[in-house]
Amino acid sequence: MSTPAHPRRATLSEVAALASVSIATVSKVLNGRSGVSDETRSRVESLLDERNYNRRNTSQSAAPLVDVLCFEIDSPFGGAAISGIERVAREQGIGMVVTGTEVTHQPGAAWVEGVLRRQPIGIILVAAALSEKVKARLRSRNIPVVMIDPYGAPATDAPSIGSADWNGGYLATRHLIELGHTRIAIVTGPDDMLASTARLSGYRAALDSAGIRPRRDWIRPGKFHHDDGLSQGIELLRADPDERPTAIFASSDLQALGVYDAARSLGLDVPGDVSVVGYDDLAIAKWAGPAMTTIRVPLAEMAEQAMRLVTRLRSEPELAFRRVDMATTLVVRGSTAPPRA
Amino acid sequence: MSTPAHPRRATLSEVAALASVSIATVSKVLNGRSGVSDETRSRVESLLDERNYNRRNTSQSAAPLVDVLCFEIDSPFGGAAISGIERVAREQGIGMVVTGTEVTHQPGAAWVEGVLRRQPIGIILVAAALSEKVKARLRSRNIPVVMIDPYGAPATDAPSIGSADWNGGYLATRHLIELGHTRIAIVTGPDDMLASTARLSGYRAALDSAGIRPRRDWIRPGKFHHDDGLSQGIELLRADPDERPTAIFASSDLQALGVYDAARSLGLDVPGDVSVVGYDDLAIAKWAGPAMTTIRVPLAEMAEQAMRLVTRLRSEPELAFRRVDMATTLVVRGSTAPPRA
Repeated sequence: MSTPAHPRRATLSEVAALASVSIATVSKVLNGRSGVSDETRSRVESLLDERNYNRRNTSQSAAPLVDVLCFEIDSPFGGAAISGIERVAREQGIGMVVTGTEVTHQPGAAWVEGVLRRQPIGIILVAAALSEKVKARLRSRNIPVVMIDPYGAPATDAPSIGSADWNGGYLATRHLIELGHTRIAIVTGPDDMLASTARLSGYRAALDSAGIRPRRDWIRPGKFHHDDGLSQGIELLRADPDERPTAIFASSDLQALGVYDAARSLGLDVPGDVSVVGYDDLAIAKWAGPAMTTIRVPLAEMAEQAMRLVTRLRSEPELAFRRVDMATTLVVRGSTAPPRA
Repeated sequence: MSTPAHPRRATLSEVAALASVSIATVSKVLNGRSGVSDETRSRVESLLDERNYNRRNTSQSAAPLVDVLCFEIDSPFGGAAISGIERVAREQGIGMVVTGTEVTHQPGAAWVEGVLRRQPIGIILVAAALSEKVKARLRSRNIPVVMIDPYGAPATDAPSIGSADWNGGYLATRHLIELGHTRIAIVTGPDDMLASTARLSGYRAALDSAGIRPRRDWIRPGKFHHDDGLSQGIELLRADPDERPTAIFASSDLQALGVYDAARSLGLDVPGDVSVVGYDDLAIAKWAGPAMTTIRVPLAEMAEQAMRLVTRLRSEPELAFRRVDMATTLVVRGSTAPPRA
């Protein structure tokens, strides 16, 4: 009854014949082993991809692994994601291999070789990205990739787990409006990240639905960093009391800590003189002084979803959905209060 | 010329004969596979350990792994350690498998089975501990264990990497004395951790060498937590200005943030009314308001050392040294200042 839904996939010996090399050589390339010239490796790689070679998952590995590629492991953000993935991996008896990327969001050249040798059941990217070439190599080995994408990559060809950024921006701003604020500024994230745009858009929508027109000079560019919060916070807050905002929505918790520092350096009290809302709800938010009102990005749950998805993709490779956005919520703490009368 | 330095190690078939089981069964136990009754597994395990069975490292694995067992991955502390290990593992082409422990510092029962199946080149414990039974199983497979031990476990049978706690306590306290403080309190860590005792001892020594007698009620017990810092900070600071300390040395950065909150809740300024020194130099220390003066524990370097040691142990199993303490340093930021005249 079943008809092939896909073009027939090439076998190992067909690929070897096409490349005019031995089956052993193709096998070396497949498994990321040495002893093959760069030229041959590249030719075999192309054929494997073109001909849609599909490694048979002959037997379940005795020691199954999942490979996680994480931007800045040593950040509150990376830690939360890794921890969430690990919890599900542990439940399922799968070992979690973690590799970091720094500076760029892409892995070093050796990473994919290690992955091919380890033959993981799948790969989870945490705020990390792969080149087209690397993606093709993974595809040819039938190794699925899932992204935990906190920044809303504009176009992805892998299933991805994000969170509801527009809603987060809306919730943060509406909270300030409900407290009675009308002079509300925002420090944004990088404008090439969809997450920043969505949060800003949520801010605008909340103001709009309350009939408040945003002042253009109260929309200040930032990059999610502490430094932006500090410098933009000073720009916003050094105006006269009647001319400055009574509330600032920062697009990340770190940025909000920078705004705290700006207020402090100007002798202003949070939340007495200025209310501050952050974004992320990292552990540092609740330890800040005052404890920070922020938007919770459910990183641990996103990580768990990604891990569950990567194991499902293995048995259900045609799994159709491409993007799941998980709900964000407002966490009210001590950094927001009604404006002074 | 070489004479055997150790009793002869049993072979697989000798262990099988002694246990009255097949070689295949011993092999299953060795590799953590299923299909063996608990009773048989336990009997074979005991024999493997007693008879000093030594797995031959026949061939280097094509995809070498190191297993990291980490208490609270999702803490600033765990993140720094994992990140440091990963950097060295990546350099060496070794995949890093991470497993978390929570609540207790010991792994779940399934952990060791996974390790035996994966056959890592070694294990690194980050503030985690193993039972005697698990240690014996790893020993019988010749899998070395190295500890990153920030708390100074009192007795260990594995090589461990720590840091100079006494020096840290001394440096923190001497810094306050040099600023002119004489009324210096401490909030300690748990008294069953050698690290706490060493830090407290460093505090006492620094006071002593300056001819300052510590007030007994200014040595306040804590557990490295934010809550301790808050509650003990309030106890210390709610006294009259002439009766309260002008400086507080907290035994962790989190605890120091608790002291910040205590000061804030009493309307006192840090460092104007009270200087605060933390311990650890986690990322949160520099983002705190004011940025925190603290003792830097070189976690990333400790992690790198541990990773280098675990690979050396493989080729040099008799490596003699058992404990390396890496230097701690004082990082001066904005939370300390001379006392008010």
